[in-house]
Amino acid sequence: MTLTDTLDLAAVLVFALTGALTASRAQLDIVGFIFVACLTAIGGGTLRDLLLGRDPVFWVSAPEYILLAAGAAVLVFFTAHLFESRYRAILWLDALALAVAVSAGVGVALSMEARAVNVVTMGVATGCFGGLMRDVVCNEVPLVLKQGELYATAAFAGALSALVALQFDLSLAVALIAAAVVTFILRAGSMVFGWTLPVYRPRPPR
Amino acid sequence: MTLTDTLDLAAVLVFALTGALTASRAQLDIVGFIFVACLTAIGGGTLRDLLLGRDPVFWVSAPEYILLAAGAAVLVFFTAHLFESRYRAILWLDALALAVAVSAGVGVALSMEARAVNVVTMGVATGCFGGLMRDVVCNEVPLVLKQGELYATAAFAGALSALVALQFDLSLAVALIAAAVVTFILRAGSMVFGWTLPVYRPRPPR
Amino acid sequence: MTLTDTLDLAAVLVFALTGALTASRAQLDIVGFIFVACLTAIGGGTLRDLLLGRDPVFWVSAPEYILLAAGAAVLVFFTAHLFESRYRAILWLDALALAVAVSAGVGVALSMEARAVNVVTMGVATGCFGGLMRDVVCNEVPLVLKQGELYATAAFAGALSALVALQFDLSLAVALIAAAVVTFILRAGSMVFGWTLPVYRPRPPR
Repeated sequence: MTLTDTLDLAAVLVFALTGALTASRAQLDIVGFIFVACLTAIGGGTLRDLLLGRDPVFWVSAPEYILLAAGAAVLVFFTAHLFESRYRAILWLDALALAVAVSAGVGVALSMEARAVNVVTMGVATGCFGGLMRDVVCNEVPLVLKQGELYATAAFAGALSALVALQFDLSLAVALIAAAVVTFILRAGSMVFGWTLPVYRPRPPR
Repeated sequence: MTLTDTLDLAAVLVFALTGALTASRAQLDIVGFIFVACLTAIGGGTLRDLLLGRDPVFWVSAPEYILLAAGAAVLVFFTAHLFESRYRAILWLDALALAVAVSAGVGVALSMEARAVNVVTMGVATGCFGGLMRDVVCNEVPLVLKQGELYATAAFAGALSALVALQFDLSLAVALIAAAVVTFILRAGSMVFGWTLPVYRPRPPR
Repeated sequence: MTLTDTLDLAAVLVFALTGALTASRAQLDIVGFIFVACLTAIGGGTLRDLLLGRDPVFWVSAPEYILLAAGAAVLVFFTAHLFESRYRAILWLDALALAVAVSAGVGVALSMEARAVNVVTMGVATGCFGGLMRDVVCNEVPLVLKQGELYATAAFAGALSALVALQFDLSLAVALIAAAVVTFILRAGSMVFGWTLPVYRPRPPR
């Protein structure tokens, strides 16, 4: 199992937890938990594989991904009441999943010798789309579009830092870890310390 | 024309009717009816074919699917006022379309010798995604996520029962019919008798 | 660079502008502008390429598309306050992007020798899906579903007119220009003069 496969597996697990917790907020039944967990877990990587023409997509050739996501959903169904704040748990798990998924996206794109622009795009897409589908389907405000927080920015900077690491002749493993760490630090810093980029606000009339 | 093609055609027809009826609730014009009907009719099967790497997707190689969906939309445009309750008609037609589409999804996955996990996943995806797109685009609450009703569960049990039938050495035709019948009975039982799985509810504080 | 590539490039640029302006209405930061602009700009063409089995999709093999969309987003971030009405700007740019994208979709489908039905479907899908994703993600009412306006209808008529032009032995360039012009005139006429098709309204009870 390659490093990229491991990253994909970790992203699937953690995104599945966020999907199941979101399903608990919508008070779905256990199959609803599994449905939203799988959608969230494999959404970003599936888009990446379709765009890169990777045939078949990662979870079709390896059933453990779906089974892992379903298992995580069942676990959450019986333990979600133990969380003090499920929304905070979603936010933190989503930050972790985002970081790992960006790294997995970058890894797959690099392994297919994609151009630099596409490496960054695939990192951002793999990181952001699972959570975006989860939030659109469950009618929550998409985290990626929440005002005044770093999300796509964190994914973008993380994917970019992998390319920078490779420019400095660091190994692939170091580059992928850098992608995950930079993404997570920026996202976590945004949640804890309010790090942000200026948002668009029309100038007040004079 | 194989049994699976026939199931795809039936699913396209019935899903197109639900899409057009949903368009009537949104008071669209006739091209809006056709647009939503086509999206609903081919959405699930398209996703399945993209995921399985079936190239080209089913309706690209056979124009009758799109024409059938468009024809159904035109028919509904001129007859929707005859329905006493369009919402009830949508619910029942959607249940029928779900059942047939799950069966079609299972049939295509089996014909491509997919693994058991993927057969179930493709059955559920083919059944659920057309209606999900219809509801997200038309801003209705997705049926698949409506609390306290069997929907994804019905699709899941239907797809599973086809695999069980094949384990008992029953023919492919019997397995596909079993998938459709089990899905429809569970979904209809849920609508008529209120069959349901327990939904997630946080324990009350003691 | 072929005529179709040029049309794709123009559609990407103008759709990116509408995406960035929509991001400004949601008060996102600069990376949010880039994210929504890229999603809108490449959404329709990506769907078309996936459906037609065109591997890889157009922007994966040519990084300038993504860079152009990102550049347009940055430009809008710093100049959006100059627009008197950003909503009107979105409407008009979207009409232009729709027209060009329908033409690009028709051109790609023709270049792959698709059947007539699929040429029309690909024209409509390329034109409509980028804006649809933009509006679903940003929680605006999708323009394609706005009641009492020509949108999918304009795209449909535009794609059809390219086929008619080819029937009369006109050149491909003329057919593609006809698609764009017919789409734009119908959409613009709908916005300015209120051109419309009758929408579905249940008969009043007698």
